[in-house]
Amino acid sequence: MHRVPSESVTRFALGELAAQLGAELIGDPAHIVSRIASLDTADSASISFLSNPRYLSALASSKAGCVIVSPLHRDAAALRGAALIAADPYFCFARLTQLWAAQSRRNFEALVHPLAVVHSGARLASGVSVGPLAVIEDGAVIGDGAVIGAQCFIGVGASVGAQTRLSAQVVLGAGCHIGERGIVHSGVVIGADGFGFAPHDGRWEKIEQLGGVRIGDDVEIGANTCIDRGALDDTVIESGVKLDNLVQIGHNVHIGAHSALAGTAAVSGSTRIGKHCTMAGGAGVVGHVTLADHVHLGARSVATHSIHKPGLYTGLFPIDDNASWEKNAATLRQLHRLRERIRALEKGNETKSS
Amino acid sequence: MHRVPSESVTRFALGELAAQLGAELIGDPAHIVSRIASLDTADSASISFLSNPRYLSALASSKAGCVIVSPLHRDAAALRGAALIAADPYFCFARLTQLWAAQSRRNFEALVHPLAVVHSGARLASGVSVGPLAVIEDGAVIGDGAVIGAQCFIGVGASVGAQTRLSAQVVLGAGCHIGERGIVHSGVVIGADGFGFAPHDGRWEKIEQLGGVRIGDDVEIGANTCIDRGALDDTVIESGVKLDNLVQIGHNVHIGAHSALAGTAAVSGSTRIGKHCTMAGGAGVVGHVTLADHVHLGARSVATHSIHKPGLYTGLFPIDDNASWEKNAATLRQLHRLRERIRALEKGNETKSS
Amino acid sequence: MHRVPSESVTRFALGELAAQLGAELIGDPAHIVSRIASLDTADSASISFLSNPRYLSALASSKAGCVIVSPLHRDAAALRGAALIAADPYFCFARLTQLWAAQSRRNFEALVHPLAVVHSGARLASGVSVGPLAVIEDGAVIGDGAVIGAQCFIGVGASVGAQTRLSAQVVLGAGCHIGERGIVHSGVVIGADGFGFAPHDGRWEKIEQLGGVRIGDDVEIGANTCIDRGALDDTVIESGVKLDNLVQIGHNVHIGAHSALAGTAAVSGSTRIGKHCTMAGGAGVVGHVTLADHVHLGARSVATHSIHKPGLYTGLFPIDDNASWEKNAATLRQLHRLRERIRALEKGNETKSS
Repeated sequence: MHRVPSESVTRFALGELAAQLGAELIGDPAHIVSRIASLDTADSASISFLSNPRYLSALASSKAGCVIVSPLHRDAAALRGAALIAADPYFCFARLTQLWAAQSRRNFEALVHPLAVVHSGARLASGVSVGPLAVIEDGAVIGDGAVIGAQCFIGVGASVGAQTRLSAQVVLGAGCHIGERGIVHSGVVIGADGFGFAPHDGRWEKIEQLGGVRIGDDVEIGANTCIDRGALDDTVIESGVKLDNLVQIGHNVHIGAHSALAGTAAVSGSTRIGKHCTMAGGAGVVGHVTLADHVHLGARSVATHSIHKPGLYTGLFPIDDNASWEKNAATLRQLHRLRERIRALEKGNETKSS
Repeated sequence: MHRVPSESVTRFALGELAAQLGAELIGDPAHIVSRIASLDTADSASISFLSNPRYLSALASSKAGCVIVSPLHRDAAALRGAALIAADPYFCFARLTQLWAAQSRRNFEALVHPLAVVHSGARLASGVSVGPLAVIEDGAVIGDGAVIGAQCFIGVGASVGAQTRLSAQVVLGAGCHIGERGIVHSGVVIGADGFGFAPHDGRWEKIEQLGGVRIGDDVEIGANTCIDRGALDDTVIESGVKLDNLVQIGHNVHIGAHSALAGTAAVSGSTRIGKHCTMAGGAGVVGHVTLADHVHLGARSVATHSIHKPGLYTGLFPIDDNASWEKNAATLRQLHRLRERIRALEKGNETKSS
Repeated sequence: MHRVPSESVTRFALGELAAQLGAELIGDPAHIVSRIASLDTADSASISFLSNPRYLSALASSKAGCVIVSPLHRDAAALRGAALIAADPYFCFARLTQLWAAQSRRNFEALVHPLAVVHSGARLASGVSVGPLAVIEDGAVIGDGAVIGAQCFIGVGASVGAQTRLSAQVVLGAGCHIGERGIVHSGVVIGADGFGFAPHDGRWEKIEQLGGVRIGDDVEIGANTCIDRGALDDTVIESGVKLDNLVQIGHNVHIGAHSALAGTAAVSGSTRIGKHCTMAGGAGVVGHVTLADHVHLGARSVATHSIHKPGLYTGLFPIDDNASWEKNAATLRQLHRLRERIRALEKGNETKSS
């Protein structure tokens, strides 16, 4: 995404921030802040926030010009200086970063760069920005105010919803669709063929992937993530889903609304993930299974079967110093026999007591 | 890859399909199907298939206009309507998808786009298609009917075999070669430097990677997959190999013919994988080892040593609810001591019995 | 990177190599070598090396025209023919590959390709090479002799240090910086948004990522690797760090100088990795923890907590034939109860002995 060079400065008066964030201000509404910072690195020109009570001790000593706190910490905050009181300080901080970005980042011009290659059969709504050297093919549809970054590729018949922004070098394959207000980072590939082959005489016969990809509204997709097209039906990502970098989504996967998958997570083909699920970094799900709504997978944990009950699930070998690991791993390979030896000991005791 | 916009319709008469697929038709050869669907979503305009006997119950109730079945299920299929009888229904289905794709997808024009940057020292055979904003450098050789997608990069002296198709934004590095009838998806990087450094005085001295990459015929490579060039000799991918998305192939790896690696699989440098091997999603192999032919690695399982015997190998921590996992993982870190305690108990019993 | 077609030949006289490498030559300084090869594949036109004493037996039988050995193996090497004597043969080999590459690879012309799109507000130092169809935005700064590969994207206000080389299709986001003598391979994305959201009413509210990425000197970054921009402060990669392919670096990570991360390694947000650390293939670190200097993580091992003591740490489920794995994995899910059964047996014995 285009940003302004670092010499530009973002500035807000506290009164303006209070109004825009719907927060109560304690302190001077004319005080100017020009930086968002953590409690311990903040200075008088910074605004900071306290969302985790663990950092309460840092609040008192913070030099921040203003802090965002919950009503619970109003008094503690007021003791040290200006404060914005918000029901959910972390949410308020998120909104603050959005105000910051809106002021600090250069707007995209509603302009098709003269060196973009846009097919005459593509339809671009008003306010669309197309970067240099982007390619938009026949039948593609780009919604109001959407941004197609430099060097992007939009295939035949694909569509991009209104206000959705694609960073440089995104590939949206033919017949694939993304909704409104989405954010797609560089290197993302949407609509490559799913991995489908029929084994035959020791070779792999290609199953052409005839489906597409349908992505809802308000979806964010991290750098170099891949979402494959479906074999017959579409791969579906519902609205509000957030995917981090280097995530792999196989063909005909269905991800429910507002689920979030962290970096290098992977979902194999035809698996259905519920709404409001999370997968921590590197978590995975095998193919053809179902996760219920509100299922959470721990880091690197792989769901090898369907999970019907909400909750947190983990499967990760605990890290240890290498010497200890070697001993334990060696023993692990005999674990089943250890169990039999315990059973034998128990039987021996039973015999003796009888 | 370029596809036709979704408004176009693919249509086949059953008689034509029977002829093209070499299958026996039971039913009206003039009946038209315009969709391939699973048994339960099929309607009278759909053709479906039964390859797994588990779904036999779905066959009777399917509304499909035609089903592909094996000779074993001929009678069950005939009871409900039209059928194509094929020795291997799944293989027949794969062939069917290929007929579908051939009819539904726009052909590539044998044309070098005027906005492609092709060096005068590159050699393009007849029937080559080069997309907009592709770069083909000096000495590159592109075979008959090959397709170089939009925004691809073909380095100095690289070669692409006849009929091989590169999607948009593929990088084929200098001096790297891919054979005939290959399919390379977007974001693939072939020929980046292998990860080779000599440690020296606490720093890493680069070992220049002087080898290339040689890829055989009929190889498919998924989106954002990386195949590094060799240090001295070449990295080799034999014919018929299928790589899914986000796969990592280190320098001087050798992958035998007709092996298949699923998404996010990774093979470290100088490792040799046999023919007809499979690696499930996220499986890995450490460097400098050998897997025999017909070795299969389970999901996320890492081969840390050579495997000489064909078969299925697994190493994956079983997922569990987090509370159970925590208890078991904590105990796992004392596993070796548990074993010693069992031995002590056994010794105690021996002493008592003697 | 641009390389010469394979028909060109690199040739060095042994005397010249000795001079350039600062090694002592035993043998004819006029002897020509035109290939670097391993001991067992070398011929009289090849130069080879012995760094691992394990391969000492291969030395005697090698047909290499010259071998690089340590002073320890001087006599063994001299017995069979020409030799270069170097204190650290592997380091000497690395330097040799660099001489080879310098001679064999085509130089980049200090030229901005006429089809590059360079903003008038970008500043390019002398000797810069910009490949075809690269995009360089306003305020970007490119240092002396840097190479911006074909189809790269350099965002607003980003900077590339002197002599740093970017392969084709690299993305360097707005306001991100890489130092001198770096090497960045194709498909790398530097400066995508970190994965930051505030949960609110069952949705994810975006935390705009206002920081950048700062990368030191002599850093190499493998293909399709992602380094996210920081939330408030910058993500930092210190000098001399080497990242392999498909590596994920989350926002606000800090990686100390001369650390090396192998393929598909992943570091979650706000984690701090020390200097001279290594992460083997697929290793990971969760967010918000610290690894001390000289911490080494084994293949696929995940550090779930801070590690303060240098050393090698591992956590990897040992691979086994699938039947054995199934038995052991099933037992593992009852491991905590097995421990209780052992304790019960021990208590029973205590009771009896008392």
